[in-house]
Amino acid sequence: MSDDQRFGLDRRVTLPGPLRLDGGVLLSPVEIAYETYGELAADGGNAILICHALTGDQHVASNHPVTGKPGWWTRMVGPGKPIDPARHFVICANVLGSCMGSSGPATVNPATGAPWGMGFPVITIRDMVRAQAMLLDHLGVARLKAVVGGSMGGMQALSWPATFPDRVEAAVVIASTARHSAQNIAFHEVGRQAVMADPRWNGGAYYDGEPPASGLAVARMAAHITYLSEAGLTEKFGRRLQAREAKSFGFDADFQVESYLRHQGLSFVDRFDANAYLYITRAMDYFDLAEEHGGVLANAFRETRARFCLVSFDTDWLYPTRDSRAIVHALNAAGAPVSFVELSSPYGHDAFLLDAPELNRVVEGFLGAGQA
Amino acid sequence: MSDDQRFGLDRRVTLPGPLRLDGGVLLSPVEIAYETYGELAADGGNAILICHALTGDQHVASNHPVTGKPGWWTRMVGPGKPIDPARHFVICANVLGSCMGSSGPATVNPATGAPWGMGFPVITIRDMVRAQAMLLDHLGVARLKAVVGGSMGGMQALSWPATFPDRVEAAVVIASTARHSAQNIAFHEVGRQAVMADPRWNGGAYYDGEPPASGLAVARMAAHITYLSEAGLTEKFGRRLQAREAKSFGFDADFQVESYLRHQGLSFVDRFDANAYLYITRAMDYFDLAEEHGGVLANAFRETRARFCLVSFDTDWLYPTRDSRAIVHALNAAGAPVSFVELSSPYGHDAFLLDAPELNRVVEGFLGAGQA
Repeated sequence: MSDDQRFGLDRRVTLPGPLRLDGGVLLSPVEIAYETYGELAADGGNAILICHALTGDQHVASNHPVTGKPGWWTRMVGPGKPIDPARHFVICANVLGSCMGSSGPATVNPATGAPWGMGFPVITIRDMVRAQAMLLDHLGVARLKAVVGGSMGGMQALSWPATFPDRVEAAVVIASTARHSAQNIAFHEVGRQAVMADPRWNGGAYYDGEPPASGLAVARMAAHITYLSEAGLTEKFGRRLQAREAKSFGFDADFQVESYLRHQGLSFVDRFDANAYLYITRAMDYFDLAEEHGGVLANAFRETRARFCLVSFDTDWLYPTRDSRAIVHALNAAGAPVSFVELSSPYGHDAFLLDAPELNRVVEGFLGAGQA
Repeated sequence: MSDDQRFGLDRRVTLPGPLRLDGGVLLSPVEIAYETYGELAADGGNAILICHALTGDQHVASNHPVTGKPGWWTRMVGPGKPIDPARHFVICANVLGSCMGSSGPATVNPATGAPWGMGFPVITIRDMVRAQAMLLDHLGVARLKAVVGGSMGGMQALSWPATFPDRVEAAVVIASTARHSAQNIAFHEVGRQAVMADPRWNGGAYYDGEPPASGLAVARMAAHITYLSEAGLTEKFGRRLQAREAKSFGFDADFQVESYLRHQGLSFVDRFDANAYLYITRAMDYFDLAEEHGGVLANAFRETRARFCLVSFDTDWLYPTRDSRAIVHALNAAGAPVSFVELSSPYGHDAFLLDAPELNRVVEGFLGAGQA
């Protein structure tokens, strides 16, 4: 095994498809950008699929090619971590509809030779999962020891055993939900309207010129607030002023929290495509796992024998603990084995991405239990 | 008393000033648009000042001149209501910095003959209160039987006894706070950035052309979510689709909550000035009553003999009950008489504007108690 394989190798594959999408469109070809870490065991029993969140990517444990920053979940994935390439064959793919190499609005529509833009078909969480399954076929991974994800990644981790009941042995669903609430949809709609209000968006046809960076930055700012707890914001910033002694009585960023938010918005637009933001938020808003199964969430899990691990954070108001509890109740009704814990954290929804030793212990214990 | 006086008379006065603002600027003249209902008693003891919220106006109990809709608080102010023009002399003034006739960015700067735009001085909640005091002087109202307000109106109702301790007998502070939190500031900053991201904003100089309606609509949408509770949104909209049977797999407003939010944004821009939105949100973000009094909130109330009535709503996550409780603690420390109640409502922050019989009973009882 070379170091490249051990510590991440940025790959991209073009699969012929077609992939039949929930919206009815046949997508072909299907491009998937992904990374793998470690090696598939001879018995194929050590594959773990990591699913990323809305603005995440396949660089789960290796440096981001644009920002140069470490992978987004090196706290969970890496040597000595709960998910360890020395033991696991780790796969992480850029979701369908995103902008880090997988098919999405920014990739080329072969029928026109130009970027898809808003001509790209609207996709769902289940479509993302189906594309991941195509990738696993390509990689020769028949079944998953586990599928693991937080936030939108948790939606995929839930959708996996519901869509491919025989291919998943365990699912770890962190800070997530089985359906987007009216408030979730509302915040996403604000973001989409912010993007679309930017004249540079131009109906999604901006790839020849300047992207709608102003609108996308506003969208990111609004969303970012929902990722943090009120108490966490107060602890981190309170009403502290920027590096000046008094209020400016102007409209510069007087408060540190203003400056922080502006930075979040501006840095985001350098690494993300505005149309991809529209498509992925739409997929999340469409997500309602019960609806896909006759309106009864438990029905989603009746055919799988997967074990489940649910984790919520007490200060997460985006996908609060009651959302996880609803999933647990459905799993109980379906007779599926499930462990559930609400962890305490001051950091709100984003806690799953931050230093959370308890989360690591939970995931390590759950994955290890499957080996007994 | 004519019917005009009894049921509201839209008035506007230009006072010479100067008004010394917290930012150091001397504002002159000071225009104030206001309404009054009822007549001032011979002993001057029946004057009640109503303070409006961020996007409110002086038309508290009479039709809005632009939308034609009834006044924004006819549930509280009117014949047979807790605040009744038959008994009270009711005054409501458009706040400084707003756009319904009082001095603000949309009014004319006498030095240039053109609208102030972003040349208007940044103002504070206390500046709004000082302008209201100038209006009371003009009207011959020496003291207030009560000052009453919800949300930003509650900030003014708090600031009144702190700024003019001898002029206020009672203050009713509903769904409000003594300081804007980091999260409050963050949401407002998103709104300001949405306005400023609109090219039509043009640094605030748009009065000769098209206003930045797209940006302001996005700002309003983001803010509107904070006015409603998660449970209220779920109850009102859930994941219900618009008048079609299935998802569109497009970017039209599929969900009712999307359509509702878009409507909130679009209808707002017809009645509100984008620059005024910037100035008033800034004033709210600057509000920290303790900071104005040596960092100790109780100090704000040591010189007043006013009675206080605090009301919060259990589902208000914009200014949650703990914000009201902090004020109550400070009033206790200052030895001020205070009654406090948390009311139950599914409607979040906006509950104070909606049908709330309990709120009416609380206000009626509190105001009546002062007559004993």
